[in-house]
Amino acid sequence: RINKQRLWDTLMEMGEIGGTEKGGSCRLALTDLDKQGRDLFVRWCEEAGCTITVDKMGNIFARRAGEDNSLPPVVMGSHLDTQPTGGKFDGVYGVLAGLEVIRTLNDNDIKTRAPVEASVWTNEEGSRFPPAMVSSGVFAGEFDLEYGLSRADLDGKTMGEELKRIGYAGDADVGGRSFKAFFEAHIEQGPILEDEDKKIGVVTDAQGQRWYELTLTGQESHAGPTPMPIRRDALVGAARIIDMVNRIGMDNQPNACATVGLLQVFPNSRNVIPGEVFFTVDIRHPNDKILEQMDQALREGAERIAEDARLEMEFKQIWHSPPVPFNKDCVDSVRRATEELGFSHRDMVSGAGHDACYISRVAPTSMIFVPCEDGISHNEAERADPDDLAAGCDVLFRAVVQHAND
Amino acid sequence: RINKQRLWDTLMEMGEIGGTEKGGSCRLALTDLDKQGRDLFVRWCEEAGCTITVDKMGNIFARRAGEDNSLPPVVMGSHLDTQPTGGKFDGVYGVLAGLEVIRTLNDNDIKTRAPVEASVWTNEEGSRFPPAMVSSGVFAGEFDLEYGLSRADLDGKTMGEELKRIGYAGDADVGGRSFKAFFEAHIEQGPILEDEDKKIGVVTDAQGQRWYELTLTGQESHAGPTPMPIRRDALVGAARIIDMVNRIGMDNQPNACATVGLLQVFPNSRNVIPGEVFFTVDIRHPNDKILEQMDQALREGAERIAEDARLEMEFKQIWHSPPVPFNKDCVDSVRRATEELGFSHRDMVSGAGHDACYISRVAPTSMIFVPCEDGISHNEAERADPDDLAAGCDVLFRAVVQHAND
Ligand SMILES: NC(=O)NCCC(=O)O
Ligand SMILES: NC(=O)NCCC(=O)O
Repeated sequence: RINKQRLWDTLMEMGEIGGTEKGGSCRLALTDLDKQGRDLFVRWCEEAGCTITVDKMGNIFARRAGEDNSLPPVVMGSHLDTQPTGGKFDGVYGVLAGLEVIRTLNDNDIKTRAPVEASVWTNEEGSRFPPAMVSSGVFAGEFDLEYGLSRADLDGKTMGEELKRIGYAGDADVGGRSFKAFFEAHIEQGPILEDEDKKIGVVTDAQGQRWYELTLTGQESHAGPTPMPIRRDALVGAARIIDMVNRIGMDNQPNACATVGLLQVFPNSRNVIPGEVFFTVDIRHPNDKILEQMDQALREGAERIAEDARLEMEFKQIWHSPPVPFNKDCVDSVRRATEELGFSHRDMVSGAGHDACYISRVAPTSMIFVPCEDGISHNEAERADPDDLAAGCDVLFRAVVQHAND
Repeated sequence: RINKQRLWDTLMEMGEIGGTEKGGSCRLALTDLDKQGRDLFVRWCEEAGCTITVDKMGNIFARRAGEDNSLPPVVMGSHLDTQPTGGKFDGVYGVLAGLEVIRTLNDNDIKTRAPVEASVWTNEEGSRFPPAMVSSGVFAGEFDLEYGLSRADLDGKTMGEELKRIGYAGDADVGGRSFKAFFEAHIEQGPILEDEDKKIGVVTDAQGQRWYELTLTGQESHAGPTPMPIRRDALVGAARIIDMVNRIGMDNQPNACATVGLLQVFPNSRNVIPGEVFFTVDIRHPNDKILEQMDQALREGAERIAEDARLEMEFKQIWHSPPVPFNKDCVDSVRRATEELGFSHRDMVSGAGHDACYISRVAPTSMIFVPCEDGISHNEAERADPDDLAAGCDVLFRAVVQHAND
């Protein structure tokens, strides 16, 4: 069994970096705080006897040697970056559960046949640099390196520049090597396990998602003397599209999600009719056909609303991550380990995207979910129970050892 | 007659300060650029032989002595601050038309009985520091000095601090002295004069307006695994209120205006359900009864929408500027001067608020409008015809000389 207290303590220590008043963490990708988090992880792994490799996307691999180091490793991991209103568990848990597995192997002097690695994937959240899971995407060949390094934040800073600045632009090529298996432990980020009082989610699939950027252009003009009937108010158009996006989500229940998370108004002055609004749309569904129908409804609805409001519209889909079926063997290993350990469980579909989604294209992959309080994530109030976190880590330990000795 | 070319040249020279690529000016209140504009105005006035007074709100008065300097002055003026997407004429024209009147009096060696002053009022736009017309409001006793100096921008910087920083926190008390009359020349900022091919708007009234600040609070949560039916999405609530605000404007045609100009989303991340949205509402009508009904519709509608969306709402009215009837004598002087000069004209109600609105509470006041292209203002494309600007300035000259010799 892994060391529950040690796992918890590392989570709390990492959570202090960028720690917020409300008990969360704000450690946006490739900021100084992200660097501090990475440095701490690297130090811990070196202390545990691991060899560190950093690739050109800043992905970090901490390797514990096996008996036969010519075998591909079994890899665990997730991400250390957070949302602006991030919690202490999203991503971080999957990374530090990997470290805890390595420490437990050390404690018990266990030699695995294949090497075992704990990994950190750069900019999984996609909050500072869209889209999400960029660097596991480059690793898996979904994006090319140039695309990855040129992702830019709202100030125009690129991932390439920021990786250099914080000293994590590594030498290793991104991808091009095989994993025996990849396992990502994660909090569920939704309410299902808690509602059904289950300890472990055996993740069989991840739902699909599409991200969009819309720019509506009208004409800025004075909020007083400009008659309503002749206005071209970009924010009124955006408001109608936001309400429609919500309706598209509601109309495709159960399971559909549709969200406008980011919006910027120009010139953003109280007595000026907004001339331009930039905003994003995120739609999701486990079934790609329905996701496609939601996409159609979005395109047609936005077009109609923009036309009615006499606005110009730039409409760009910037990302499509189709539904992911995880590897049957890996899923079975997780289910078996859970049962052997006597934990309650259920199969489930991930509502969030994860690095495991892209890695599943190049390696046998699956995920282990543990409950989180009230299903809340991407929120400073995100919480998970130390027992549940330990349970997920024990499942990870079993699945990893099994695959490493296979 | 005033000097058309000189008036145009001063407008163009002032417009260069904060000049934008699209031909407008961005000179937000109490920025370094506002200081530069003020310095230029002060230099021009001193060169024209005026004495400068700056009051504690940074209002500037450039006085040309009269025959009897114990008489209260006739004052002209407007503001030099602009919107983020400001033009070269809004406000600036009323200030520099005042300077042009003084220069024309000098050219023709005209001595007026009462002194004549050109004035600049601080932060008329209310874009950086809400509400609008703050400093003419303090002058007129609508706001006390402490309120004026403590107005803060979105970064928390106050007018008091910024006045000190740019060297325009003057010594003179704000208000407490009388004007024989006050005249403000301004571009119309709406389409009526152009549509009806009239050169001069004789402004009889200004419509009323109310400004609000709303904060909706829901719960930030993950855009993927959080089921639609349990979300508390602050941006969806805001979107519905924005659409309703627009409907309140449309339902009260003709004449009503209703605008959401400023909106900020928190945490503003693509895959986070917005937990908080702050936005402003601006409603206007020439009839205070109807404005009151619009206020009721806004309050009740917003309450209902917030409740339906399970959001908390903070609803604050931050400003009420009731409809203003201008002084009959001053209005008649403007109409008479216009007729004597042979310019086409019509009476009209101002859609925008102006410093003249507050000054009218403490002095006989009226306004002179000239057409602006396509009725567009608060936009870098704002344009006015040199002939129209000169015509308005000629009307101002006649009205001022008449009142100064009265
Ligand atoms: N796990 C997680 O929060 N991923 C962010 C990417 C997404 O929005 O699904
Ligand atoms: N004239 C002008 O643009 N004033 C700003 C105040 C308002 O919004 O009415």
